[in-house]
Amino acid sequence: MKLAILGYGNLGKGVECAVKQNKDVELKYVFTRRDPATVKILTDGVAVKNVSEILNYKDDIDVLIICGGSATDLPKMTPEYAQYFNVIDSFDTHARIPEHFANVDKAAKANGHTALISAGWDPGMFSLNRLYANCILPDGNDYTFWGKGVSQGHSDAIRRIDGVKDGKQYTIPVPEALKAVRAGENPTLTTRQKHTRECFVVAEEGADLARIEKEIKTMPNYFDEYDTTVHFITEEELKRDHAGIPHGGFVFRSGSIGWNKENKAIIEYSLKLDSNPEFTASVLVAYARAIDRLNKEGVTGCKTVFDIAPAYLSPLSGDEIRAHLL
Amino acid sequence: MKLAILGYGNLGKGVECAVKQNKDVELKYVFTRRDPATVKILTDGVAVKNVSEILNYKDDIDVLIICGGSATDLPKMTPEYAQYFNVIDSFDTHARIPEHFANVDKAAKANGHTALISAGWDPGMFSLNRLYANCILPDGNDYTFWGKGVSQGHSDAIRRIDGVKDGKQYTIPVPEALKAVRAGENPTLTTRQKHTRECFVVAEEGADLARIEKEIKTMPNYFDEYDTTVHFITEEELKRDHAGIPHGGFVFRSGSIGWNKENKAIIEYSLKLDSNPEFTASVLVAYARAIDRLNKEGVTGCKTVFDIAPAYLSPLSGDEIRAHLL
Repeated sequence: MKLAILGYGNLGKGVECAVKQNKDVELKYVFTRRDPATVKILTDGVAVKNVSEILNYKDDIDVLIICGGSATDLPKMTPEYAQYFNVIDSFDTHARIPEHFANVDKAAKANGHTALISAGWDPGMFSLNRLYANCILPDGNDYTFWGKGVSQGHSDAIRRIDGVKDGKQYTIPVPEALKAVRAGENPTLTTRQKHTRECFVVAEEGADLARIEKEIKTMPNYFDEYDTTVHFITEEELKRDHAGIPHGGFVFRSGSIGWNKENKAIIEYSLKLDSNPEFTASVLVAYARAIDRLNKEGVTGCKTVFDIAPAYLSPLSGDEIRAHLL
Repeated sequence: MKLAILGYGNLGKGVECAVKQNKDVELKYVFTRRDPATVKILTDGVAVKNVSEILNYKDDIDVLIICGGSATDLPKMTPEYAQYFNVIDSFDTHARIPEHFANVDKAAKANGHTALISAGWDPGMFSLNRLYANCILPDGNDYTFWGKGVSQGHSDAIRRIDGVKDGKQYTIPVPEALKAVRAGENPTLTTRQKHTRECFVVAEEGADLARIEKEIKTMPNYFDEYDTTVHFITEEELKRDHAGIPHGGFVFRSGSIGWNKENKAIIEYSLKLDSNPEFTASVLVAYARAIDRLNKEGVTGCKTVFDIAPAYLSPLSGDEIRAHLL
């Protein structure tokens, strides 16, 4: 399978790393909006091209992995490129998925292409686990916890505060909440009871630390509904101790089974990831394999992880997966 | 969807309970090898019939759920009934899955039916998680732990010992092993290091307890490779404290991501089930929905959980699951 990456940030680089681990996948091109001469990639012999040239390579790419932001990039890019390529993205604005799906579906179907949106881990693997668990346990409650991990959006919000030079925010599930859910107690949890937020902040010299701390803790939507801790550290400490982009989380379905709902059944799925973008990229590459196959079978239009039979993700044959993984 | 159950033991009764939770599913018949007059079921208005009459009801059943044992029942029954019905079973002899699959596939295809074998949790949900995780993290190690839960096979083995009146065996994952895997240490674990076995035994009056304990602990294949604890208890204690059939377990994929495999990614899926057969039955009913739909779409032959797109398990529409679960 011949892949191309559009957008070479953390996610695009993650796709490049994932391709290296999949022997049946070849990276053909990296497309960028920047001057290609300024973009240095990891793989020898792979050309970096400006996105303006992308249509010249149409026939040499099985699936285009679009690595853009969900706020403004993907809503435009995925429908646009679905006209010319089989495409896959990691669109993660949950509320706008129906609209994005409809736009991509229309473009892909009209041009005989296959697309998959919202691959990754949430949406993605977490969604899959919510769906499977809801189908198996119709009577139950869902719980999703995120972290411990870096929230890019919250880190950006901190950095926009006057007097803040740099900063990083970790989202952390509350251990007591996890414990209660895991024990089948079906607790009703407020926002505050589910997660805490921990901030590591590098302040500008002479900045008013008390004011910064207060601005963070009272910031609407981002922090005001959470118990938030703020640590002021040096730039060196931030670089040394907080350079990574770890993330993860937990999806639970806590259900009742039995004639009188007398028995509990708890399904738990969790991820612990040193690198959020590299894991997301690994999911994208596995689903790119499925999209390539489906297109070759004549299936077109937009799909999500819900529509893909798991066998399509594997480089192994049906006989092999039945013999070794079932 | 109209279902019928063939075989009314713990699993068949579990299917009956699961049907009650699924509003789009109707239980039409329970078929038994026993005298139907002696089989009392939970659902009002559902007929119990002898299996000899089953073909008379062929046109009134969308999917037949075959609740038999994997050792001798299912290898015969599933291919036989796949000639006349869409069928689903929970065949769990991992080593014989390829052979069972081929037999069921032949019978189902020749007669335009759709079948699914080996649904449940292992094989079943655990297999799915092994497959997904292997596709996402090609570089990594798999770990499966079972328990804490009752092993029917090991409990039966205890009960066959001379001087044993009754008994129950629990399989328990070793906490240190779970901890090491969860921490990404990728340990190499022997059989003994993964699980311990705990037995609760009711001895016949005057039996030689020391001999029974020794026979259990040294029993080849079942106990000799494990650290086993034996507790002698009264019949009343067994009934009071060990009447349930709980089970569960953990599936891990501990992988490496990044250009130089410098980052860890750990995927963990776990189940904690008060009732093993009721949960297995809940999985069977969800997959029966998929089989019914696939058959109506003209897809025939034998499938496994690997071949079923998750959306087929849900009573909700594609729009609904994208809006609420993705």
